[in-house]
Amino acid sequence: MSNQQPETPALRDIPIGIDAAGLRREFDSMGEIEVPADRYWGAQTQRSLHHFNIGGDRMPIEVCRAYGTVKKACALVNAAGGSLPQWKCDAIVRAADETISGALDGHYPLYVWQTGSGTQSNMNVNEVLSNRAIQLLGGEIGSQVPVSPNDDVNMGQSSNDTFPTAMHIATVLAIDDELLPAITRLVEVIERKADGWMDVVKIGRTHLEDAVPLTVGQEWHGWAGQLRACLHEIERSREGLCELAVGGTAVGTGLNAPPRFSANVAGMIAELTGKPFVTAPNKFAAQGALDAMVRASAGLRGLAVALMKIANDMRWLGSGPRCGLGELKLPDNEPGSSIMPGKVNPTQCEAIMMIAIQVIGNDTAVAFAGSQGNFELNVMRPVIINNVLHSIRILADGCDRFREFSVEGTEIVRETIERYVHGSVMLVTALSPVIGYQNAAHIAHEAIEKGLTLKEAALASGHIDEAGFEAAVRPLDMVGKGLAGA
Amino acid sequence: MSNQQPETPALRDIPIGIDAAGLRREFDSMGEIEVPADRYWGAQTQRSLHHFNIGGDRMPIEVCRAYGTVKKACALVNAAGGSLPQWKCDAIVRAADETISGALDGHYPLYVWQTGSGTQSNMNVNEVLSNRAIQLLGGEIGSQVPVSPNDDVNMGQSSNDTFPTAMHIATVLAIDDELLPAITRLVEVIERKADGWMDVVKIGRTHLEDAVPLTVGQEWHGWAGQLRACLHEIERSREGLCELAVGGTAVGTGLNAPPRFSANVAGMIAELTGKPFVTAPNKFAAQGALDAMVRASAGLRGLAVALMKIANDMRWLGSGPRCGLGELKLPDNEPGSSIMPGKVNPTQCEAIMMIAIQVIGNDTAVAFAGSQGNFELNVMRPVIINNVLHSIRILADGCDRFREFSVEGTEIVRETIERYVHGSVMLVTALSPVIGYQNAAHIAHEAIEKGLTLKEAALASGHIDEAGFEAAVRPLDMVGKGLAGA
Amino acid sequence: MSNQQPETPALRDIPIGIDAAGLRREFDSMGEIEVPADRYWGAQTQRSLHHFNIGGDRMPIEVCRAYGTVKKACALVNAAGGSLPQWKCDAIVRAADETISGALDGHYPLYVWQTGSGTQSNMNVNEVLSNRAIQLLGGEIGSQVPVSPNDDVNMGQSSNDTFPTAMHIATVLAIDDELLPAITRLVEVIERKADGWMDVVKIGRTHLEDAVPLTVGQEWHGWAGQLRACLHEIERSREGLCELAVGGTAVGTGLNAPPRFSANVAGMIAELTGKPFVTAPNKFAAQGALDAMVRASAGLRGLAVALMKIANDMRWLGSGPRCGLGELKLPDNEPGSSIMPGKVNPTQCEAIMMIAIQVIGNDTAVAFAGSQGNFELNVMRPVIINNVLHSIRILADGCDRFREFSVEGTEIVRETIERYVHGSVMLVTALSPVIGYQNAAHIAHEAIEKGLTLKEAALASGHIDEAGFEAAVRPLDMVGKGLAGA
Amino acid sequence: MSNQQPETPALRDIPIGIDAAGLRREFDSMGEIEVPADRYWGAQTQRSLHHFNIGGDRMPIEVCRAYGTVKKACALVNAAGGSLPQWKCDAIVRAADETISGALDGHYPLYVWQTGSGTQSNMNVNEVLSNRAIQLLGGEIGSQVPVSPNDDVNMGQSSNDTFPTAMHIATVLAIDDELLPAITRLVEVIERKADGWMDVVKIGRTHLEDAVPLTVGQEWHGWAGQLRACLHEIERSREGLCELAVGGTAVGTGLNAPPRFSANVAGMIAELTGKPFVTAPNKFAAQGALDAMVRASAGLRGLAVALMKIANDMRWLGSGPRCGLGELKLPDNEPGSSIMPGKVNPTQCEAIMMIAIQVIGNDTAVAFAGSQGNFELNVMRPVIINNVLHSIRILADGCDRFREFSVEGTEIVRETIERYVHGSVMLVTALSPVIGYQNAAHIAHEAIEKGLTLKEAALASGHIDEAGFEAAVRPLDMVGKGLAGA
Repeated sequence: MSNQQPETPALRDIPIGIDAAGLRREFDSMGEIEVPADRYWGAQTQRSLHHFNIGGDRMPIEVCRAYGTVKKACALVNAAGGSLPQWKCDAIVRAADETISGALDGHYPLYVWQTGSGTQSNMNVNEVLSNRAIQLLGGEIGSQVPVSPNDDVNMGQSSNDTFPTAMHIATVLAIDDELLPAITRLVEVIERKADGWMDVVKIGRTHLEDAVPLTVGQEWHGWAGQLRACLHEIERSREGLCELAVGGTAVGTGLNAPPRFSANVAGMIAELTGKPFVTAPNKFAAQGALDAMVRASAGLRGLAVALMKIANDMRWLGSGPRCGLGELKLPDNEPGSSIMPGKVNPTQCEAIMMIAIQVIGNDTAVAFAGSQGNFELNVMRPVIINNVLHSIRILADGCDRFREFSVEGTEIVRETIERYVHGSVMLVTALSPVIGYQNAAHIAHEAIEKGLTLKEAALASGHIDEAGFEAAVRPLDMVGKGLAGA
Repeated sequence: MSNQQPETPALRDIPIGIDAAGLRREFDSMGEIEVPADRYWGAQTQRSLHHFNIGGDRMPIEVCRAYGTVKKACALVNAAGGSLPQWKCDAIVRAADETISGALDGHYPLYVWQTGSGTQSNMNVNEVLSNRAIQLLGGEIGSQVPVSPNDDVNMGQSSNDTFPTAMHIATVLAIDDELLPAITRLVEVIERKADGWMDVVKIGRTHLEDAVPLTVGQEWHGWAGQLRACLHEIERSREGLCELAVGGTAVGTGLNAPPRFSANVAGMIAELTGKPFVTAPNKFAAQGALDAMVRASAGLRGLAVALMKIANDMRWLGSGPRCGLGELKLPDNEPGSSIMPGKVNPTQCEAIMMIAIQVIGNDTAVAFAGSQGNFELNVMRPVIINNVLHSIRILADGCDRFREFSVEGTEIVRETIERYVHGSVMLVTALSPVIGYQNAAHIAHEAIEKGLTLKEAALASGHIDEAGFEAAVRPLDMVGKGLAGA
Repeated sequence: MSNQQPETPALRDIPIGIDAAGLRREFDSMGEIEVPADRYWGAQTQRSLHHFNIGGDRMPIEVCRAYGTVKKACALVNAAGGSLPQWKCDAIVRAADETISGALDGHYPLYVWQTGSGTQSNMNVNEVLSNRAIQLLGGEIGSQVPVSPNDDVNMGQSSNDTFPTAMHIATVLAIDDELLPAITRLVEVIERKADGWMDVVKIGRTHLEDAVPLTVGQEWHGWAGQLRACLHEIERSREGLCELAVGGTAVGTGLNAPPRFSANVAGMIAELTGKPFVTAPNKFAAQGALDAMVRASAGLRGLAVALMKIANDMRWLGSGPRCGLGELKLPDNEPGSSIMPGKVNPTQCEAIMMIAIQVIGNDTAVAFAGSQGNFELNVMRPVIINNVLHSIRILADGCDRFREFSVEGTEIVRETIERYVHGSVMLVTALSPVIGYQNAAHIAHEAIEKGLTLKEAALASGHIDEAGFEAAVRPLDMVGKGLAGA
Repeated sequence: MSNQQPETPALRDIPIGIDAAGLRREFDSMGEIEVPADRYWGAQTQRSLHHFNIGGDRMPIEVCRAYGTVKKACALVNAAGGSLPQWKCDAIVRAADETISGALDGHYPLYVWQTGSGTQSNMNVNEVLSNRAIQLLGGEIGSQVPVSPNDDVNMGQSSNDTFPTAMHIATVLAIDDELLPAITRLVEVIERKADGWMDVVKIGRTHLEDAVPLTVGQEWHGWAGQLRACLHEIERSREGLCELAVGGTAVGTGLNAPPRFSANVAGMIAELTGKPFVTAPNKFAAQGALDAMVRASAGLRGLAVALMKIANDMRWLGSGPRCGLGELKLPDNEPGSSIMPGKVNPTQCEAIMMIAIQVIGNDTAVAFAGSQGNFELNVMRPVIINNVLHSIRILADGCDRFREFSVEGTEIVRETIERYVHGSVMLVTALSPVIGYQNAAHIAHEAIEKGLTLKEAALASGHIDEAGFEAAVRPLDMVGKGLAGA
């Protein structure tokens, strides 16, 4: 219900902005309150700013923009169904588009630490869209007429169903548009370099100890393989996010929403975003829990776990320049020390490791929060969306910087690599099928203890002659072919 | 290579057991060591027992049994390829089958806290199978002849590829055979009860506060929906586990294994277990990382998160008997207090919550460990498999006990449920589309403040008459249909 | 070493700010680079901005301000020791004071995700102080003359010892000046309210189930007792932070710093801050690890754990208004729902719960990062300080908002509280010492099953007469005295 | 109340054990149930075994033994106060002593996953002590006469106050008697070796990159310093555990316990254990929360974090033998590979790292559980005590094995250490105070790029002559004195 307008107001072409200074009175069901006169938000946004002035964490703007899509889709469906006059719909859609585009970003100031349902951010959007629509229709800002934040902008909706809908949209967009491309760019560089080094034999290391050889390309393809699996997992872990709660309204029953509202709005959101959104088949699960977000966070954590290993390997292989492993030469991006002149450090690796650790910490918070739902609502939503979007943001940027400023410029130090592979005693493994494990072990022990080359120790053992040794111990033949092992 | 036998020894039908007391000498490449004479294990197992006597955590027996499958498959493939004499293969297979069946459980005593590659557990299996095979062939236990633990039982293998293979097999079997059925049994009971209560209208609660109604069946189906999604996720998260590292040998190159060993052994394992195991396409990723285990653990964590919410809801709805919510009556299984006579508590809910918390803690360890790989090996394997199998075990048993001793016997308290739904002011929401949100809000405020019924307050407001009120505020019409919302 | 100046330049009174537009060239050991002409930072800051453009997380300004204190103290000690000319010292101190006061905040733009040692933030401070000092001395900004960022501002220092020093200072100040007062304010309000309700008998609840009575004041004092212990623990857990690494320089040996530099600088920092800072007795531990930060984070986590419980209790006790426990009436701060008119929710409790969860997630990251040191340095510093200061910030503000907008305005609902305590069957516990546990249990069972009052069931049992019952079952006598139990 | 005995039964000297087979009937307030005839436990233990058959995790026996101390102390205080006849007290004390000594371990079979209050384990103890006391007094086992599990053994107690009391006792004893000595033994070995190597100059490494020198002894003392701080922190973090809840009974009020019961029992426990136990001043905090356990767990986590760093350093420094850092030679304890003959790995380091990760995972569970209390009880007790004792156990044993089988036998490889320190370019840092940072940086760059020694590059730069170089670059003078830096 909203106050009926005698005639259809025209949508005017008014640029964004309220030409006013000082304060304006806005009202809600609890009464009046003053808001900054040049802001579109209303009473409930202002109350939230007052009550939740905590730290510096703001509701991620991606959520507010995604909410623009939700409001637009609902208005279109409500207008199509006859509940909302077309002229109101047009005004709301205009304001929603401005929200989606980021043009109204400055009107979404709320903190993460607010009501656990996200209602205050929903009302923030409702209020901004209401006032902007009123402005576009020539009405009085703050009057809630002719476009009411609750009755019109929020028509057929609750925060309980729309906030998780906005969470899902924001997350899917961030994953698809930011993270997956960044990972793909990274993995492609790694694979390109790996391909170029498929024939460079190097010593393998297990338990940090010398092992049998592999090629540099195989090692790099191992990293690429991890990242490819992460890509696949993140893509898959976002599937649950494609199911939207909108249409469940307050507790999942869809009260106050018209028939087929769920499916229609989800379809409209799919159309607006180009993503495969559908309506959640079980609204009680979709609103009482946030399990799909927990699963998406686990996908991000999987990437963090892999990046930690890869960055660690790279910085260790690049350690030195004279007292480390020194197989890789990472790019010199900046002076590494305020006291040690000429020092250069694997700082991009360190940044990506710290990012990985942050993502794992964020994921802990997400899982904990995900477990704390009660009955028809999980009221740990803001902390969850803030952590998930934070993780996506630093992973995406981190992958890009890591690639751009470290991986792409990394070179191999062939001389060092060769020296290791030829000095290692563990090539003895190739003798095992010929002379047996125990005999081979004794040769290795002798070589290490007496400082002999493997060949010297092998021949001295009497278990094999030179021809046999040369036939068996050939690093190039010990690395197999490709990536799939024997 | 192994010592050639002039003729084919016959496989004798000797029951399990070594009829000896005291100690026996065994040897490995480091020399001799005494082991208990009635145990099949050898020198390296004994060394591990000596060096890693830490706490009470033992390598999960499921890993040792799964290793039986690995050894059997390798022996069969090695024999088929001509590397291993058929009679040796037969003896190894017999011993492996005894391991798989659990008949040799008492011979796998190692601790979780051992070498991070699991090599000592691999050698434990190699030694037990070697000695048992030797016994079956009439040889001298401890002689490593005619079946050597390294050259024969471990032929074409490394711990580095076989231990993660055994991890994957053990985890897939535990998930498929224990956990998924237990979840399914639980969800089916919840769904059955939900179906029976689809028409029982109850008050919804959001933020713990009175909200609009839904039905008991919808609420229970919300829980079922969460669990169905968990089932799906766990099934999916185990897909990565179906890729096996065996055939990569020491560093992923497949050194010392014959061509197609990877694919042949994976195929054989698939055949032996009836599970869709395949060879991992990238052995360097499969051995340098344990990412598939991390992902599987995340699937388990997802279940923990959901169970936490469900058990919490159930115990809160069952709280009382006189000073709580009292909508549910959970079964009285045991006296609840040593001091308060007649007290009964929701103990199964508490157990499942503690299990959920443990699983989340275990998962933290798994993710951390998963990130700590270096180069060609992640040496945090035992801690990972121990935590994952622990989680599966307590989740599976926990779901069964929770179902059997709490969910199945839970009843609804219709009188209390009805009282709540009729007393609640939040049914005012149904007036919103008729008289507008602000007017409805004022009615609600009046009712709460003055202790009126909603109807009294609504009529007193003048915004609606009795007929209008009765037409709008009908709990049965407020719960929608089914689970998909509007 | 620095370029010698023939005469002593005078310190001019130039306001903060560089009146220039466009770009300026700065240099470091890698060459030249352009920086914004109106910023004081130099080449290394600019390189970091370029290479680490990741997400929106900036090095907490508290670290940069604390670094001002470090630089000031070092300059004073260097001047007193004769290494640094007094006029250079004066200029550096002036710039450092401007940094400490926040007047130069806009010149510290670096990201959290940078070199793991914090060197880039150290150089950021060195460069800003160098350029500002040069400006104050009438020199050419960017010339590094007469005040060099490395040789003068960073004299006797390394990032490796000063960054953890700044971390400790920033954390101690934030704890002492922000967090401890906020907790104290909160606990005092809780204690004041508790004292006022020490005689209001209410039902106890264990396992969420009705138990024996206590008073409202006792329950509230339970919360206060938890918070008092947290206060104590946080105070204590920050003790390790009072040990400063400065003076260890690059690897802990103090290379390039003069004798007694450690103790002198720590003493100066203590004087400047009024906090009990001392020099760390073991610089190798202080720089190779960040264990004191991990322990401080654990103290914060302890508060999070307690707040989670307290906020949960409060929102549950305030649940309703008609279908919940309803013992407390929390203040109505804002409309709680966009769809349900008149709904009010325990939003401050929810915010504090989310904050608690975030702090627990942050702490996970801190502990993980703390474990990842290598040799003479832990290069996970930025992620650690960012998480710890984030936790402090949201805990401090959260405690204040929670107190101000929830705890202070919370009232008790005496009627409901009385109804529960008189209806409960668990008062039967008082009969136990008189008639034995088993008899008492049967009375309780009968009362619950048949819907009797406890008195009715007790008298019907024949185990006690009315006088005996009245003598034993007196809620007011069942709550003991004070807080220490029997 | 309990059935009065006409005369004082004598305490007989009957050995532990029930000479019976099959089943025996026991009863509780819910009726009768059969238990194994040769076990002392009663009905409630049996019900718990039936309802909570989950996984293999059993209530740690340390808790049951600590409960023996609680029961003994309560009986003594009750007897002294006249509530409990002396002959009953004597029998209970005898049975309690048998429990404390471990002689009754086989009668405490319950699972961790049980009621969250630990009531079932309390009743297990009550039942065993009751039946054993009855046996000692010549009564009929299972009759609850003359010693009732509830009225006599549990007199003045609740699980709610005694279970956390037993948790605290068990934890303090495990920390004091197992963990602290093991850490002390470890740190003393490290310090002894450090002292022996205080003059061995080695290259420092920061960011894994070559840095300025320190001595091997300094590096080892860095590790010792970390461990000393952990020792201190664990000692301190157990202080909160010295406050005992006993005397709070059901909800903290002390209902059904006589005056001064709290203080008297705590004093008695202090006397029996020799530990500084006191009564908790706020029983509502002590029972509603488990914050002291959370803090103790954080202390353990601090040790895990330090051990992770130390073990990692040791295995990296020992990496090789030919393709790693090779500064240390760790003992060869066992063959390291099933496929690579002669391979030896840093397995003790790996075990301690896995233990550290497990402890961090356990701690996550403890903190989460600690936050989930409600009202007068936190019902996550069993999961907390199980994790804390698990952590203590593996840390204590782990420290011992790590010390015994790795640290004690570790040697330094002087030749490698010397080679590194003399080849490193970072000694250039000593030139910085002489020629300035920028000049020094250019020398370092030249040396690295052109493969020169530092001296060659320095002289070629023209910034310093040979005498000046020799005077400045003296590794032995670059390591300072002792541990406190400059």
